[in-house]
Amino acid sequence: MKILVQKFGGTSVATRDAMQKVLNKVTDGLKRSDKVIAVLSARAGETNKLLALADEWSMTPDSAECDALVSTGEQVSITLFTMLLKDAGIRARSLLSWQIPIKTDSDFGRARIRSIDSGNLRSYLESYDVLVIAGFQGCTEDKRITTLGRGGSDTSAVAIAAVLDSAECEIYTDVDGVYTTDPNICSSARKMDRVAYDEMLEMASMGAKVLHIRSVEFAKKYKVPVRVRSTFSDDPGTLVTQEDSSMEAVLVSGIAYDKDQARVTLRALPDVPGTAAAVFGPLSEKGILVDMIVQNTSNDGHTDITFTVSRKELPQTLELMHTIADKTGAAEILHDVNVAKVSAIGVGMRNHSGVAARAFAALTQEGINILMISTSEIKITILIQEKYVELAVRILHDTFGLDWSID
Amino acid sequence: MKILVQKFGGTSVATRDAMQKVLNKVTDGLKRSDKVIAVLSARAGETNKLLALADEWSMTPDSAECDALVSTGEQVSITLFTMLLKDAGIRARSLLSWQIPIKTDSDFGRARIRSIDSGNLRSYLESYDVLVIAGFQGCTEDKRITTLGRGGSDTSAVAIAAVLDSAECEIYTDVDGVYTTDPNICSSARKMDRVAYDEMLEMASMGAKVLHIRSVEFAKKYKVPVRVRSTFSDDPGTLVTQEDSSMEAVLVSGIAYDKDQARVTLRALPDVPGTAAAVFGPLSEKGILVDMIVQNTSNDGHTDITFTVSRKELPQTLELMHTIADKTGAAEILHDVNVAKVSAIGVGMRNHSGVAARAFAALTQEGINILMISTSEIKITILIQEKYVELAVRILHDTFGLDWSID
Repeated sequence: MKILVQKFGGTSVATRDAMQKVLNKVTDGLKRSDKVIAVLSARAGETNKLLALADEWSMTPDSAECDALVSTGEQVSITLFTMLLKDAGIRARSLLSWQIPIKTDSDFGRARIRSIDSGNLRSYLESYDVLVIAGFQGCTEDKRITTLGRGGSDTSAVAIAAVLDSAECEIYTDVDGVYTTDPNICSSARKMDRVAYDEMLEMASMGAKVLHIRSVEFAKKYKVPVRVRSTFSDDPGTLVTQEDSSMEAVLVSGIAYDKDQARVTLRALPDVPGTAAAVFGPLSEKGILVDMIVQNTSNDGHTDITFTVSRKELPQTLELMHTIADKTGAAEILHDVNVAKVSAIGVGMRNHSGVAARAFAALTQEGINILMISTSEIKITILIQEKYVELAVRILHDTFGLDWSID
Repeated sequence: MKILVQKFGGTSVATRDAMQKVLNKVTDGLKRSDKVIAVLSARAGETNKLLALADEWSMTPDSAECDALVSTGEQVSITLFTMLLKDAGIRARSLLSWQIPIKTDSDFGRARIRSIDSGNLRSYLESYDVLVIAGFQGCTEDKRITTLGRGGSDTSAVAIAAVLDSAECEIYTDVDGVYTTDPNICSSARKMDRVAYDEMLEMASMGAKVLHIRSVEFAKKYKVPVRVRSTFSDDPGTLVTQEDSSMEAVLVSGIAYDKDQARVTLRALPDVPGTAAAVFGPLSEKGILVDMIVQNTSNDGHTDITFTVSRKELPQTLELMHTIADKTGAAEILHDVNVAKVSAIGVGMRNHSGVAARAFAALTQEGINILMISTSEIKITILIQEKYVELAVRILHDTFGLDWSID
């Protein structure tokens, strides 16, 4: 029995008209496989509306109650969509997470999936051709409703595909695939036919909003091929999959950027053991995510530590740094919000040197000053002044020949 | 362990401000008993909004999906209210029907409760002082969500009180009890301290909207004392309970009326066996509820049959009657929508004759023509012209001395 998992986001199920397009995709899916599992998000805007209601009711809404409240969003979308399927004569029913069940831990608001009863799902598939499943939610061992956090519907879909050994998981969205970079700032951006899990992970972490990062981790872990495509076109989209030799022949497969960056520098810290811990421990305790970190080599027993945080967390970060500067005896605290990150990503980098050098040379040639650098196995990230972001993206896209396909 | 069940309707939970008053009632309940179970309806207007959504999506919304859709209304109200309880430092949690479970049959949209796991409820009460339960809903043996039909939250509350052998079930609403008649048309209407189950049943069936009729049947069957009172006052309300000798000393305890009546007469039907079945069989098949029925004694082998239906079902009724008149050879079909019912209700009637005669005499004296009469053990119903309804209610209220209490 061939089972296709299709996930549709909030925009795709926002209205009855939009849902008709989803209906077409499901009908088409039934031609390509024996059974379809449609995983739906809440209708666009509904989750935010429910969260606003919780905030209106309580300064600190109980997290378990909040999850049970917010989960009604998907309950509405799956029941309405199933009505359309039934009207079209398709054997279908809706399924809430507790009816399957999809079991999670008790970390309300950002629960992690522990198990999905695939036997139960398969027995539902004996009676129905389409199962319409509420994404984003699960339930604990003791039957409390949980939610998986923002973008969790992607994770639901991939996890269901994983337990069913489904051939493919299709994530429908409002763009027709994954691009080499943001087409809004680079006209030669090109839709990729395929992208490796690791590349997708790096792109997602850079704010490319096509796929939720946890769903990509899940897909990678369980080797689920994920196809990102549009509800509103027939384009085959982009296949997110395991890397192979043809992918490795490409040095760089995408350029990502992130403007939500603020840079903080602690100047002339005494370079003694435990200094870094004294700086980053308190940040971690407050749940502030630190992105790039650079520490210079010691000079006269002193060092500078520079790091970036998201802009909305800058005020709290600076407050903490003042206390830390007092404690550690740092000379000065500097900060800058007019900075942004640009990254070149590609699994092909693993086997080639010189990628970083080419990137630096290209940017320098255009007079773009490099403020910070950090590199990973498959990514080079460069912090620059924000005003150069668009230019830098276009330069790197061009430098690594992303405007044409070598597939 | 003393457990108090309190039910709050849609108006009581409509806004955060209204819910604060509910919070006061629950806090007060905790002073009078060890534990409180609060059964909530959906916020006022929400159920209708969800049903409208279903109608927008489908001409014939799938009934199972519709129940799962509509049940989100209570899910929202119980989670929001539980947030308030937790903020007030009360050990509380929300419970959906499947988490208890409250099991019903599979008659979606008007399911009947089959069982409630009281052991599970009691074990929840070990960890929490207040359980906030979604009224109006249940789940089938195979875990599908059902709803109990309009007013079903009353039934949920009474059923929960029944399985817990709770001392009392309080139904909070926006009126402060059950009145001898509608205070809007009879200024001397008086709030009753107590009313018998059977009287309440007759009043509910006449459209006195204070309690849902099925909840009264349930309360009567399991001998659950039900107190009807207001969320917005401290009045002790009206206790609905088993009749006792003091109740039987009162001939008539209430006057009810119903304007939603249309009268249909089939003239000169051949009086042969099976005629009544030929008339009422098709009505029953179409689900049209026939209220009063009168058949005159035969005259020359012919008879007249008169009955009443609700006004919105008159067109379909007349359509059916034309077919039936053709089949049975009735001479004529008459109908009248300017009619209304007035009833005098009282368990004391059982032991006294002459109540009907007194009612007829009082109405006739004021020139009100009696169109139809039907009597039961504890009720006399009279069909009159609609324009006389208010006058008739006041006359009967006065005739049976309901403006003063003999308690």
